[in-house]
Amino acid sequence: MPKWEDNLRQVTPYVPGAQPQSKNVIKLNTNENPYPPSPKVVKAIQEMDLETAMRKYPDPTSGDLVHALENYHGLDEGQIFVGTGSDDVLSIAFLTFFNSDRPIIFPDVTYSFYPVWAQVYGIPYREIPLDESFRILPEDYGWIDPENRASAIDEGGDIPENGGVVIANPNAPTGISLKRGYVEQIIAANPDVIVIVDEAYIDYSRESVLPLLHDYDNLVIVRTFSKSRAMAGMRIGYAMSSPRLIRAMNDVAQSINSYTMSATTLKAGVASIEDDEYFRARIEDVRKTRARTIVELKKRFFNVLPSSTNFVFASPSRVKCETLFEELCARNIFVRHFNGERIRDYLRITIGTDREMDALFAAIDEIQG
Amino acid sequence: MPKWEDNLRQVTPYVPGAQPQSKNVIKLNTNENPYPPSPKVVKAIQEMDLETAMRKYPDPTSGDLVHALENYHGLDEGQIFVGTGSDDVLSIAFLTFFNSDRPIIFPDVTYSFYPVWAQVYGIPYREIPLDESFRILPEDYGWIDPENRASAIDEGGDIPENGGVVIANPNAPTGISLKRGYVEQIIAANPDVIVIVDEAYIDYSRESVLPLLHDYDNLVIVRTFSKSRAMAGMRIGYAMSSPRLIRAMNDVAQSINSYTMSATTLKAGVASIEDDEYFRARIEDVRKTRARTIVELKKRFFNVLPSSTNFVFASPSRVKCETLFEELCARNIFVRHFNGERIRDYLRITIGTDREMDALFAAIDEIQG
Repeated sequence: MPKWEDNLRQVTPYVPGAQPQSKNVIKLNTNENPYPPSPKVVKAIQEMDLETAMRKYPDPTSGDLVHALENYHGLDEGQIFVGTGSDDVLSIAFLTFFNSDRPIIFPDVTYSFYPVWAQVYGIPYREIPLDESFRILPEDYGWIDPENRASAIDEGGDIPENGGVVIANPNAPTGISLKRGYVEQIIAANPDVIVIVDEAYIDYSRESVLPLLHDYDNLVIVRTFSKSRAMAGMRIGYAMSSPRLIRAMNDVAQSINSYTMSATTLKAGVASIEDDEYFRARIEDVRKTRARTIVELKKRFFNVLPSSTNFVFASPSRVKCETLFEELCARNIFVRHFNGERIRDYLRITIGTDREMDALFAAIDEIQG
Repeated sequence: MPKWEDNLRQVTPYVPGAQPQSKNVIKLNTNENPYPPSPKVVKAIQEMDLETAMRKYPDPTSGDLVHALENYHGLDEGQIFVGTGSDDVLSIAFLTFFNSDRPIIFPDVTYSFYPVWAQVYGIPYREIPLDESFRILPEDYGWIDPENRASAIDEGGDIPENGGVVIANPNAPTGISLKRGYVEQIIAANPDVIVIVDEAYIDYSRESVLPLLHDYDNLVIVRTFSKSRAMAGMRIGYAMSSPRLIRAMNDVAQSINSYTMSATTLKAGVASIEDDEYFRARIEDVRKTRARTIVELKKRFFNVLPSSTNFVFASPSRVKCETLFEELCARNIFVRHFNGERIRDYLRITIGTDREMDALFAAIDEIQG
């Protein structure tokens, strides 16, 4: 074995959902939007001066997109960081904020990329179990109810000192959303470390923690264009925080790659922000189909968790989960199945068009007999 | 000061060349191509099914682009890694290959991003001085001339045990190219560590180390689409190596971001590879203008280093370097000046169109009086 083998970084990569290249597939496995982005986004790309835009380096500050997002969210200059998808943004956030010997903490059932980033960057971590209903309990992240301080202290000793907190809200793959007040308890209970709230699915939910940015200097919110903005193919994610923390992220990002966002990606991102009416209408479409999907799955004897996202997490009771997964695959319907101990009886099913969901229901009927 | 300040990663970011947004500028400061990419590249973007491409995640394996590059270079499957510019590729390579306590080594005058990656990832490094003519000497990287072994051993003790080697060939910002045989000496002298050869400018040079891939299992070659392929705005770089090392890079990359390459970037990259005739013709155009530029600068009493790149590294003798830099800026002509001790009397001047270079020469005449 060559000696350089010893110097290779040891990792266990994240495995994304399959991306079958066939057209003849109903793809409900990676939480893509069933609707395209605004026609104005497509037009913006087709009409741009591509010769010049390709030849030259893009703006390393991604200024147009950053300013569009600042305006859209009513933030001050310096409060937005952009990257190539929220995975890039989260990765930079881990590298920037989690440099301590104490473990960062996140739920045991959540976005399975968190432990992968921790591993690749050598960050210790500890997984905090969700409760039996797959809920995040602020008490498990250091929150002590003032009404109940005595009993909390009696129970004490189990809350680890941590090097940071990561909460996906709504959580994935459960789809369950925590109300703002509860996320605030987690942020307030951890003032000495950075708390990342991953809001990848927030547009399908109700309560962002965005209004809390004024009150907490340890809060970083991460969003993506890949779900509600129907731009998974263009690779845009962003973080919102104080100018101090955004500057720290930019310093790290600029120590890795001066220009991550392509000219076409920047153009498409700005165009998406500009067509808010289209954006909100498509979110409504997905919400309606989601409501109907939950009803239809329950009719078919599924246990369906409450969903604040563009997917449902549902467990069939009439047929084994793996069987259903494989039988759907065989019918060219792709959903997502995870092997984790607590969730292996569930399927994560992306909300598609009504027609795609009808095909899913028909297939389930056929399989369940 | 909040306690989380202690956990922020300490970095000194790379500072890229200025990207003035004004149109009225002659931009010779970031080694962009003065010619646009092939018209077929622009057409490929304009004619693609953008609605679907945007909505869905791109192929996480970047298969089309990877296979196009494998074919183009006559490589086997698994020998190409792609990323968002060669900066991304180099960053992943540093993170993948340089995990040892020994310092990695690279020249003192070279791409100034190398020490930045080393710092951000906590990799020790040592800079090896170029000789007085700005040349890389293989002896300084552990090579011992067999004809001269006795004297080499007598001198010994100064070659550090290293954790890896990075060589830019041609080197930047000097523009000087090392012949393949000399780079091979460096690769051969360091069999226990990975040697990265950064060939960002190789298309303007003569001798790639690509033919050496068969013979050395420790060689990783990095290329970019940002210079000769006129696609800085699209963010494409790639590495060529053995399937073993490419797999190691992919494992690390997939532990950071499953999808870095946007759908438009992948499409543009493939289209560029397909139009080889256009590509080679534009390289010839730049070479011709480079030859003329060297003659014209020498006429104006510049010391010009031999260039195997799309820029020249040149030192004025009739006027102070900083003065010339500032006077050119004042005339809306941007070139690059670095503050390093050994190179502060030089300007790095990108080869533009003949017309842009004529404007540069006229401005120099005016400034030198």
